[in-house]
Amino acid sequence: MNHNLVSFVPNLRVLDCTLRDGGLVNDSFFSDEFARALYEANLKSGVDYMEMGYKCSKKIFSTDRYGKWKFCDEDDLRAIVGDNKTGMKLSVMADVGRCDYEQDILPRSESVIDMIRVATYVNAIPTAIDMIQDAKKKGYETTVNIMAVSKVNGEDLKNSLELLGQSDVDVIYLVDSFGSFYPEQIQRLTDQYMEVAVRYNKKIGIHAHNNQQLAFANTIEAMNKGCGATYLDATVNGLGRGAGNCHLESLLSFLRNPKYKTIPLLRFIEQYILPLKAEGLKWGYDIPYMLTGELNAHPSFAIKFIKEGRLDYYNFFHELLDDTF
Amino acid sequence: MNHNLVSFVPNLRVLDCTLRDGGLVNDSFFSDEFARALYEANLKSGVDYMEMGYKCSKKIFSTDRYGKWKFCDEDDLRAIVGDNKTGMKLSVMADVGRCDYEQDILPRSESVIDMIRVATYVNAIPTAIDMIQDAKKKGYETTVNIMAVSKVNGEDLKNSLELLGQSDVDVIYLVDSFGSFYPEQIQRLTDQYMEVAVRYNKKIGIHAHNNQQLAFANTIEAMNKGCGATYLDATVNGLGRGAGNCHLESLLSFLRNPKYKTIPLLRFIEQYILPLKAEGLKWGYDIPYMLTGELNAHPSFAIKFIKEGRLDYYNFFHELLDDTF
Repeated sequence: MNHNLVSFVPNLRVLDCTLRDGGLVNDSFFSDEFARALYEANLKSGVDYMEMGYKCSKKIFSTDRYGKWKFCDEDDLRAIVGDNKTGMKLSVMADVGRCDYEQDILPRSESVIDMIRVATYVNAIPTAIDMIQDAKKKGYETTVNIMAVSKVNGEDLKNSLELLGQSDVDVIYLVDSFGSFYPEQIQRLTDQYMEVAVRYNKKIGIHAHNNQQLAFANTIEAMNKGCGATYLDATVNGLGRGAGNCHLESLLSFLRNPKYKTIPLLRFIEQYILPLKAEGLKWGYDIPYMLTGELNAHPSFAIKFIKEGRLDYYNFFHELLDDTF
Repeated sequence: MNHNLVSFVPNLRVLDCTLRDGGLVNDSFFSDEFARALYEANLKSGVDYMEMGYKCSKKIFSTDRYGKWKFCDEDDLRAIVGDNKTGMKLSVMADVGRCDYEQDILPRSESVIDMIRVATYVNAIPTAIDMIQDAKKKGYETTVNIMAVSKVNGEDLKNSLELLGQSDVDVIYLVDSFGSFYPEQIQRLTDQYMEVAVRYNKKIGIHAHNNQQLAFANTIEAMNKGCGATYLDATVNGLGRGAGNCHLESLLSFLRNPKYKTIPLLRFIEQYILPLKAEGLKWGYDIPYMLTGELNAHPSFAIKFIKEGRLDYYNFFHELLDDTF
């Protein structure tokens, strides 16, 4: 189907990952009130999936240092969504090597979670596949999110996609962890992912970061006019690590699908996002993120620079060159 | 020539319009020190054209209410650039109906200005052509910037481009005044402009606004991998009206052309842009601009909303719907 702004692409799935990616900004310390209001706003906006947070190991991450959305215990989820008898599905993210998935991920019949998203670096694909098989066996929809693709050589990516194609995973995500890709690169990568997806009957997703103010543009690009990615990640007001993500409100407006509405999100931003900003929580486009994006460097350099209140971009650029090449 | 990120497009011209579009944020009250530092930074960065400001009528605009870059008197220009014996050319913008071009624009031999950019709405194209012919006769390079194209019907745009094709203008600019276009629309419009440009031996330029965080992406898109726009407008840190423009530092980094350098701009941002922000000058992406962009409405609604310190996006959205449809 050729998307041309007047028509709309019917098989798209929009996934709000504000609680999860935004959790990287505030160590997952969102209040229940915030989570509940976001859940309600997403429901009203027609969002297809809401990601509630991470499924992290409490052996690795302390429950003192991290809020409940780092762990997504079943009781904590149900305190917000009840049995979630709605059309909106729920997901959690499980990082390879950072979760006890065999025990912590319940059978789907005992959980309100619908989808497990496995995040992996390319070198851990075999473990990711174990996790995917575990989740499938338990009855979940699954995605695999290959992180930091901008640092992966072509041969490794090709082999990884092939392995994932042969796995039981439902959706393979193109992830621009460092916000370093330009639209034409997203186009070529989407084509590469789609070639595998078509061959193995998978779907493709896109998760972008806004280091170069391209998260929204790259998300649109990956859709490839209705012939590319159909799982689209976004966060309210871009709330996510570092430069943040594709802005959910912009994305829904672009999609021109009558089932999506941006107005409930405007209310939510007024009532819940602005107070976070007023408290000093920092995310979104800024020069240091642009520089790490351009240099294909981890955003942690920029996050540290901003946290320290530094503004000497010129020095920072040279430090980055030293640290990353 | 097919641009693929490793190669670079050799015939591009980057135009910094910070003093001009940024002048819409502070009524053109930039200090001489700011203008001189920007001139130096642009020179070091390899920028091809620097726009010094507007050439506005003093009968219409008071010199009390507006700074010198609203008028660009020859003496004021020379106080900054001397005789500009450099490889960087200088431009000014002249709005149809807002300038006394016959008198105020000197013969090129008596001016440091190299290029006159005529800004026009589609209904004033004949006057714009008079201005272009006047500037050409005086020896200048010329561009025409058709504003608010997102409000122009297809037939009018087609006729306008045809008339401009037959004129003496050198460059026809695609201008997204309201920041309302998505990349795929920019692609189609670029194709339409290019068809005329090829037929009449003109060049195409792009001037984008960042209402939907698409100014950079749309600028890249208009380049059409080296087969589209070759005159690219940008401003330092996006300093321009409302949501601002394509960020010059991002654009130069993207172009991968050894003649362009972003480091001098980082210094300039540190030393001159950050103080403007600290003083409270406001520009750049924000929710109200996203909404006017989405609704194809004039940014003045959003500028007013922000100036009033309002944060009730929900009400604003409904007011916009009332005011614009």
